[in-house]
Amino acid sequence: MDIAQRVYNHKWKIDPIVRSLIDTDFYKLLMCQSVFRNQPDTQVTFSLINRTADIRLADLIDEGELREQLDHIRSLSLSRGESTFLRGNTFYGKRQMFRPDFMEWFEGFRLPPYHLEKRDGQYELTFEGAWPEVMLWEIPALAVLMELRGRAVLKDMGRFELQVLYARAMTKLWEKVERLRGDSALRIADFGTRRRHSFLWQDWCVQAMLEGLGSSFVGTSNCLIAMRREVEAIGTNAHELPMVYSALAETDADLRAAPYRVLADWHEEHDGNLRVILPDTYGTRGFLENAPDWLAGWTGIRIDSGDPASGAEIAIDWWKSRGENPREKLVIFSDGLDVDAMLQLQKQFAGRVRVSFGWGTLLTNDFRGLVPGNALAPFSLVCKAISANGRPTVKLSDNPNKAMGPAPEVARYKRVFEVGSQVARAVEV
Amino acid sequence: MDIAQRVYNHKWKIDPIVRSLIDTDFYKLLMCQSVFRNQPDTQVTFSLINRTADIRLADLIDEGELREQLDHIRSLSLSRGESTFLRGNTFYGKRQMFRPDFMEWFEGFRLPPYHLEKRDGQYELTFEGAWPEVMLWEIPALAVLMELRGRAVLKDMGRFELQVLYARAMTKLWEKVERLRGDSALRIADFGTRRRHSFLWQDWCVQAMLEGLGSSFVGTSNCLIAMRREVEAIGTNAHELPMVYSALAETDADLRAAPYRVLADWHEEHDGNLRVILPDTYGTRGFLENAPDWLAGWTGIRIDSGDPASGAEIAIDWWKSRGENPREKLVIFSDGLDVDAMLQLQKQFAGRVRVSFGWGTLLTNDFRGLVPGNALAPFSLVCKAISANGRPTVKLSDNPNKAMGPAPEVARYKRVFEVGSQVARAVEV
Repeated sequence: MDIAQRVYNHKWKIDPIVRSLIDTDFYKLLMCQSVFRNQPDTQVTFSLINRTADIRLADLIDEGELREQLDHIRSLSLSRGESTFLRGNTFYGKRQMFRPDFMEWFEGFRLPPYHLEKRDGQYELTFEGAWPEVMLWEIPALAVLMELRGRAVLKDMGRFELQVLYARAMTKLWEKVERLRGDSALRIADFGTRRRHSFLWQDWCVQAMLEGLGSSFVGTSNCLIAMRREVEAIGTNAHELPMVYSALAETDADLRAAPYRVLADWHEEHDGNLRVILPDTYGTRGFLENAPDWLAGWTGIRIDSGDPASGAEIAIDWWKSRGENPREKLVIFSDGLDVDAMLQLQKQFAGRVRVSFGWGTLLTNDFRGLVPGNALAPFSLVCKAISANGRPTVKLSDNPNKAMGPAPEVARYKRVFEVGSQVARAVEV
Repeated sequence: MDIAQRVYNHKWKIDPIVRSLIDTDFYKLLMCQSVFRNQPDTQVTFSLINRTADIRLADLIDEGELREQLDHIRSLSLSRGESTFLRGNTFYGKRQMFRPDFMEWFEGFRLPPYHLEKRDGQYELTFEGAWPEVMLWEIPALAVLMELRGRAVLKDMGRFELQVLYARAMTKLWEKVERLRGDSALRIADFGTRRRHSFLWQDWCVQAMLEGLGSSFVGTSNCLIAMRREVEAIGTNAHELPMVYSALAETDADLRAAPYRVLADWHEEHDGNLRVILPDTYGTRGFLENAPDWLAGWTGIRIDSGDPASGAEIAIDWWKSRGENPREKLVIFSDGLDVDAMLQLQKQFAGRVRVSFGWGTLLTNDFRGLVPGNALAPFSLVCKAISANGRPTVKLSDNPNKAMGPAPEVARYKRVFEVGSQVARAVEV
């Protein structure tokens, strides 16, 4: 018993969930730098969206506690060691990934205010302001809500009951690790920050992967954990870039070109394994058919919605049609993965492309079946850019259940991007 | 990180398995006091017997490490707090269970020398000397061998692999606890000291039972854990008493009377729930048929071999035949129990007798199936009195697979105690 540690712990007003500005996805920082350079003055609104309506977050989570956690996040700034890490570490084989002007801005950065209201058993949580500032709310806001929901469920459990709960969760994860060990060609990264059970649990999962999977574990999307555990920080770009660029388009022609403009900006900044296309924002098939030839030279494609095997086949066919060798290309699967899907996809695509997996919620939050009423099961909570400079954003994706935006705008986007009928898939996490 | 604690830990020459003279079964202390009074000068030999021959302990366990652990146990003496506990605590509702003369002797006590040799992949470990001294070797010797075997299996495992192993073991135990919770009439004590996985694990199991089972958990046989966790110390008497008393008998008539003489001595010292007959040493049926009437007045019977349901039926019939009301009597089941057996026996006998369970090895050492090759599965290791004043001891029990002693003596005992054919049952633990 370390008495001083215990006394110190008792002095905390709260037990902060997010304790560092880099306890976030690495791609947020890459995108933030890109936005900081290309779109620093664009005004955006991000909003929390709970796609699992029957989980009534406002009934589960105390508003005061939520405000305390969000206020604590607003008090965070980059520490000296974190700054040194971002400035000095090699990311994706590159030194000085983060430019001095960006680092200087980030060192002075604090998260902007939030707006919180309760409505119909849910929280309306929104963030408004300059895009490079507001975008950094997404991951910590989600992590706080997920963890507060977990704490609400756990608060009446006894000491041994809790220990056994975590013992069961560890056992469950390790059984997954043992199954994944069977295929040493697997390449898997942790993509589970936003909907993790808790920070400590994500950190445990990363360490278990590190010991259990060896070289099959390629890194974590969590920048803080990557720093502390000395593993690769993983991630490229996300839907918010084409969504905001598209919202800003003045004409249909501009709109059609917007997703490519995103990648043209990215092309200037990044090469190698950071040149990964996320093609599904407005339908993968149309995006690839109409893509300029320079995009076919990019390293990889990330499959984040729709049937993953079909998405990979579309990518392979596209590369072939553009005279590229798919065997040299990277396919990153990142949508709702668990062990069966990864093993199956690996079997199907190994040797045909370079396969990689971004394993998210079912890595860092698979507490399904571990408490009565399944009250710790992960659910589909997102935090998205809903408008840019006053115009609504739209996302279609390859799964109509993941579409978002006002109906007339969705219709317009479907017309402009020539999206036909789509197959709906359940969105679990 | 408590630096001082870590540095202190590093100074240990070994990591001692048994750290207290009362890290032993409570009934050993009760029996020791009885022997100290009634048979202080009887010379006995105790010997380790591994009934699971394919577990080659001498190949698994380093002799030097074993000697260090045994030497460490010889260095132990009763601490002031332990002495205060034994003198001041209420056991089975009685103050001063341990008499001042016994306590004075015990406070000066050190365990006598041991004799250790390797033969055919097994350890020959024997203890010779005065009965009250030698008998206290049994439990720590078994615990040391069980835990060293576990350490040998675990020594090449990684940090997370170990954490997951214990997570699995915790999960396994908790699932048992959850099943046992279903019947609030259950009364279960921990009887798992001798063949536990480790001291810390037994301590965890007791705490888990305490939280998980509430009043269905009635205590532990482990005196040290009973003291630390402030639960009842549980236990009455064991086969070594009739085995040694019988070995000392000069004639067949003396031999036939010996098991009753044990209980006559016990009768003088104890009452209430400590008056529990262990009838199976030379066959339950014959023992009860020939028992004096005052024994029918005793509180209970412990069923420790043979088919437990048959044993309980025999006990009930016997009480009825002696004009006793079985509903007021206690039946303690203690042979190789696990959840299914306990739930089944409870269902079968609740309401007909007062039912209680001594849950041993499958409580504190159920690591079956948790490591490759099942290398942590518990096995049947015992440490028994094999001779008294130069004469061999004999045990028959209600299961011929548990019988021990030289063949001619076994034959003589079977004749004297009129033991007919017996049903053999596998001895797992």
